[in-house]
Amino acid sequence: MVPHPFDPVTPEEIRLAVRILEAAFPGVPLRYNRIDISEPIKKDVLPYVEAERLRKPLPPKPARLLYSYFHRLDSGVCCKTLINADSKSIIYTKELPEGVQPPMDVDELADIERICMEHPAVQAEIEKLKLPPGMSVCNDPWMYGTDNANEKRRLFQCFMYMVAVDHPENNHYSLPCKFCPVFDGPTKKLVRIDYLPGGADTATVETQPWKPVKTVQYAHDLLDEPLRTDLKPYIVQQPEGPSFSADGNSVYWQKWRFRVGFNNREGMVIHNVTYDNRNVFYRLSVSEMTVPYGDPRAPYHRKQAFDVGDVGFGLNANQLSLGCDCLGHIKYFNGYRADAKGNPILLENVICMHEQDNGLQYKHTNYRTGTASVTRNRQLVLQMICTVANYEYIFAYIFDQAANIELEVRATGILSTVPFDNENGQTVSWGTNVGPGVMAPFHQHMFSVRIDPAIDGFKNTVYYEDSVPLPEDENNPYLVGYTTEQSVIQKSGSANTDVNRHRVFKIRNDNIINPITYKPIAYKLVTVPSQMLLLSKNAMGYRRAEFASKPIWVTKYQDDELFAAGEFTNQSTKAHGVETWVQRNDKTEDEDVVLWHSFGLTHNPRIEDFPVMPMERISMMLRPDGFFTKNPALDVPPSTQSFNKSTLHKEPEKAAASCCSSAGGNKAKLYKRVD
Amino acid sequence: MVPHPFDPVTPEEIRLAVRILEAAFPGVPLRYNRIDISEPIKKDVLPYVEAERLRKPLPPKPARLLYSYFHRLDSGVCCKTLINADSKSIIYTKELPEGVQPPMDVDELADIERICMEHPAVQAEIEKLKLPPGMSVCNDPWMYGTDNANEKRRLFQCFMYMVAVDHPENNHYSLPCKFCPVFDGPTKKLVRIDYLPGGADTATVETQPWKPVKTVQYAHDLLDEPLRTDLKPYIVQQPEGPSFSADGNSVYWQKWRFRVGFNNREGMVIHNVTYDNRNVFYRLSVSEMTVPYGDPRAPYHRKQAFDVGDVGFGLNANQLSLGCDCLGHIKYFNGYRADAKGNPILLENVICMHEQDNGLQYKHTNYRTGTASVTRNRQLVLQMICTVANYEYIFAYIFDQAANIELEVRATGILSTVPFDNENGQTVSWGTNVGPGVMAPFHQHMFSVRIDPAIDGFKNTVYYEDSVPLPEDENNPYLVGYTTEQSVIQKSGSANTDVNRHRVFKIRNDNIINPITYKPIAYKLVTVPSQMLLLSKNAMGYRRAEFASKPIWVTKYQDDELFAAGEFTNQSTKAHGVETWVQRNDKTEDEDVVLWHSFGLTHNPRIEDFPVMPMERISMMLRPDGFFTKNPALDVPPSTQSFNKSTLHKEPEKAAASCCSSAGGNKAKLYKRVD
Repeated sequence: MVPHPFDPVTPEEIRLAVRILEAAFPGVPLRYNRIDISEPIKKDVLPYVEAERLRKPLPPKPARLLYSYFHRLDSGVCCKTLINADSKSIIYTKELPEGVQPPMDVDELADIERICMEHPAVQAEIEKLKLPPGMSVCNDPWMYGTDNANEKRRLFQCFMYMVAVDHPENNHYSLPCKFCPVFDGPTKKLVRIDYLPGGADTATVETQPWKPVKTVQYAHDLLDEPLRTDLKPYIVQQPEGPSFSADGNSVYWQKWRFRVGFNNREGMVIHNVTYDNRNVFYRLSVSEMTVPYGDPRAPYHRKQAFDVGDVGFGLNANQLSLGCDCLGHIKYFNGYRADAKGNPILLENVICMHEQDNGLQYKHTNYRTGTASVTRNRQLVLQMICTVANYEYIFAYIFDQAANIELEVRATGILSTVPFDNENGQTVSWGTNVGPGVMAPFHQHMFSVRIDPAIDGFKNTVYYEDSVPLPEDENNPYLVGYTTEQSVIQKSGSANTDVNRHRVFKIRNDNIINPITYKPIAYKLVTVPSQMLLLSKNAMGYRRAEFASKPIWVTKYQDDELFAAGEFTNQSTKAHGVETWVQRNDKTEDEDVVLWHSFGLTHNPRIEDFPVMPMERISMMLRPDGFFTKNPALDVPPSTQSFNKSTLHKEPEKAAASCCSSAGGNKAKLYKRVD
Repeated sequence: MVPHPFDPVTPEEIRLAVRILEAAFPGVPLRYNRIDISEPIKKDVLPYVEAERLRKPLPPKPARLLYSYFHRLDSGVCCKTLINADSKSIIYTKELPEGVQPPMDVDELADIERICMEHPAVQAEIEKLKLPPGMSVCNDPWMYGTDNANEKRRLFQCFMYMVAVDHPENNHYSLPCKFCPVFDGPTKKLVRIDYLPGGADTATVETQPWKPVKTVQYAHDLLDEPLRTDLKPYIVQQPEGPSFSADGNSVYWQKWRFRVGFNNREGMVIHNVTYDNRNVFYRLSVSEMTVPYGDPRAPYHRKQAFDVGDVGFGLNANQLSLGCDCLGHIKYFNGYRADAKGNPILLENVICMHEQDNGLQYKHTNYRTGTASVTRNRQLVLQMICTVANYEYIFAYIFDQAANIELEVRATGILSTVPFDNENGQTVSWGTNVGPGVMAPFHQHMFSVRIDPAIDGFKNTVYYEDSVPLPEDENNPYLVGYTTEQSVIQKSGSANTDVNRHRVFKIRNDNIINPITYKPIAYKLVTVPSQMLLLSKNAMGYRRAEFASKPIWVTKYQDDELFAAGEFTNQSTKAHGVETWVQRNDKTEDEDVVLWHSFGLTHNPRIEDFPVMPMERISMMLRPDGFFTKNPALDVPPSTQSFNKSTLHKEPEKAAASCCSSAGGNKAKLYKRVD
């Protein structure tokens, strides 16, 4: 089967790329860091997807592009190759400049983890802990958030933890060690061992015998307390099946049509979104995220993960399980990656899709007649869960029947912890004691969502609208009047949110005027006003993550500008992303524009976030605003008992049921006289 | 049965109050505006509910207090009486000062609506419309947001609409008339007819024959387009019943225990909330809301509803229907009101309670072993839906298993519309054309939530915490460090939210130190940072609603201080609420404090909000923050297929199922080699 331009990479394509690269570098041993689809050229793909939308004869497919990052094991040089899979040819191969690091890969991380454990110097440190029998040590290799602009090596820092119980869910994050070996990836050599402070200052000591404390466990069978027994099953049934249908990665649901994409870096991507056959968005993705930590002490300043660019949400996506990660009637999507040898590896069930009920969408009761119109808010959810060592992120695109798209992010998983001698009541002002001997430093989770709009076409304009009082003059004699002020983002640049002015960002199509409002049709972005980076502007981590210094960026579309902090974030010393692209000063009015929204959580851990964190939820929405001529969900059937089959709770003393009619409005007397 | 101190008023109590009042005013004809429970005196009720919580012998019940607002029909004077229902005696009767108006009541509104329609002057105006056969006119009587500090009359303004179709759900709001009669309530006399502008300025003309335009209908059987046919049923089953139990108005669910209260004014109230038998909150309520409109033209400046104080969410609460308003296994609660003659009227099913599934609560996958711990976020929802003429508000208190309480507000229903001659492309800068001849002005919905905390006791302290960079000095050499700054609200007063500083408000108990964090135990308030009142500080509407000028207020508890804008908002000219109480400058550190959160929507209507509005959702949360020593939801059983019984979507080409084990962790290989 020939893949659609937006389909994820296939195993055949991975094998093809390997064959092409082996032919291009005969005799050269190659180590594959990535082999994945490269986003198709937009101008080539638009005629194709527009013909699909308009049900016209399809033009030739745009070229399937693949890219690979790989290391030449002869020279140690790292290269990027772009391949045309249709013509089976290389478009270019370029060597990455020295010091520019491609992301970490799965096999590499496993290697480093093993090499660390086997290294005699590390074993010697472990020996000094004098752990009781049955206990061991493990490590999580981390990206090395460099503090040295001249660092050319490919480094990994390994955070070490004590393992109290041999159990697949032992919480080693509860027992962090006070040493941290740093390895060189390509040579596998130990660079040095960093020692971690135990107190509130930076003082470190030689590794000491471990003073036993209890692990704070999260696994159900390692808990001291019994599980709750009073939770009753809650089962979702769709006896007639789901309301969606899927043809490969193409999804149809309630006037929505879109394609589910997947790549190693971003994971889930939503392509080519139409509603009622009108273009709405060309591409939606979580383009980057960074997690800087607020602990000022070395080496913790090097803890700054770029979970998209340094590793990849696709690679970290959980393989989801029926009945565990979603509830109801579930469809799964798969992805692929290549291993270091170029073998395709199936990433099974990395995206799940299902419907959910989200309460009421709208209701109105005519108080004169007691007649109510009420519809429920059925939603379609596409979910991906990424494990980045200790943390988990749950991403969900949620489509509804009123033409809204929500992107919900849930942060959960385990806090990144540090050792801390807190038995004597010691605290720090940049972290929270979460257990004996363990502290969780403050940090931020900063996301960048890339919104490539297509509001009834591919030339759009971004503007923001503030609500402001009218002047106190003769036209506003009672001082109640207020209005809105519009500011068009005419050139590529950035903007701030402003809660106090109720600032709303909108994307409009100046070429199409709504026949009722007399304003251009538009969608609005319901932002997540958030604290931006707390890092000093002079910190290297700030320069690496400048996307997270402003909540809104607008750029003119260019192919290859997909990632807010740039293509290569691993060990970067500054970004090459939105902060750079906006400097082109492109015209962005009535152009092919891209809107980037940065938002996040300032996460000063609660002790309740340990040993595993009840999810914290962030949500941004895209809502039509003058895109239609009335509520687009009016044709959703009413909420009725014959459809919903709810159950009345029976109490001992009475069992009267109130029931709505199954067709038309729901009639209920508003007030009843008691006799 | 003797009611619990927090129980809603009973029909017997309404009858008792009437008997007591009739005896106290022999021969005086009385018209009852309200007969309802009065909140019990806190110092009297605390020993009782603490004995309940600690399962100790119960002390005598505190007195059941009832209050009534009523008009003496002999003198026209309006009175308030407080009654001790236990001793069957009047505590006090006081005459309200002239011009102080009790809220509107149900019978009164029905009277005004009828009197307006029957009035010859109104009929004469209607005649001038020369409506085609089959069409008629109706009116919505409104509170009169006065602009005259000397106004002593009890006034109603009647907004008039044309009725295109004789159907119980005809949308008359689509066809507003250009005249607005004002009536005096007690005398039922027409005061005047206001004429409404048709253009963008204030010019009005004599009533003209109506130029026919089409009503924008919302009712399913009045739509031109067919309903969607591709929505499949989604059924929630709880074969073993719900996880909650209810004993009267006392509810138990997943370590939570609380009492569901209901009164005519606030509607649903949550009393005496404990978690795992620890006190958390004494009382939670939506204490007020106001809706000022931004249209600067008379008489629209008098459109400022106080939906709690002017009318009452309890009186406006919908009688809910099984399968329509909630999904799943539903329990209902009832309330009562008195009619104008003092007869008790049953308000049936005004609160519904059910469980819902809200996706994942937490997940962690150990990437080494591929073993995942995952639990779902089961919630208990208590919902009330209020119809205030055109608008609907859906309020839900949502309890979860991680000791969080969310208050979700959904705004839906129909926009308040005004006539507007927009056929020639005319627009205004303070409203949106939503249909032919009809415009929806900008407005705000400003809520006040009253939080009476009891964080492990009744002496608490409110403070806020900002996240700020550490100084750039030798203790922060890499410029990454950040910390928090605490500001205690030591005296009654107000505070602002601050997104840019990630300001978080917390309620702590200084007398109880968390043994792990070494900080006082606390709950945090996740605020809804919102634009505050857009009204000028010099506008009367601002002075009436000063609670909505600041997002946070802290007062020292006093009985009778329940309502943010004061007890009497109807035709008020200034507030007597939080803005007044904070001026006492009470000590609020380690005291019985009350935290008030004002938030809202600046609602500049979208055309998609018409003719009925897809809900807009606001949510605030109360989350434990150092209240426990670890995640309180650890003992929630895992999410497993054997419990959840999900269904795998079958695609034509394959039907492979992935399934998690039903006990312990969910094992899944993270990566699979493709052969």
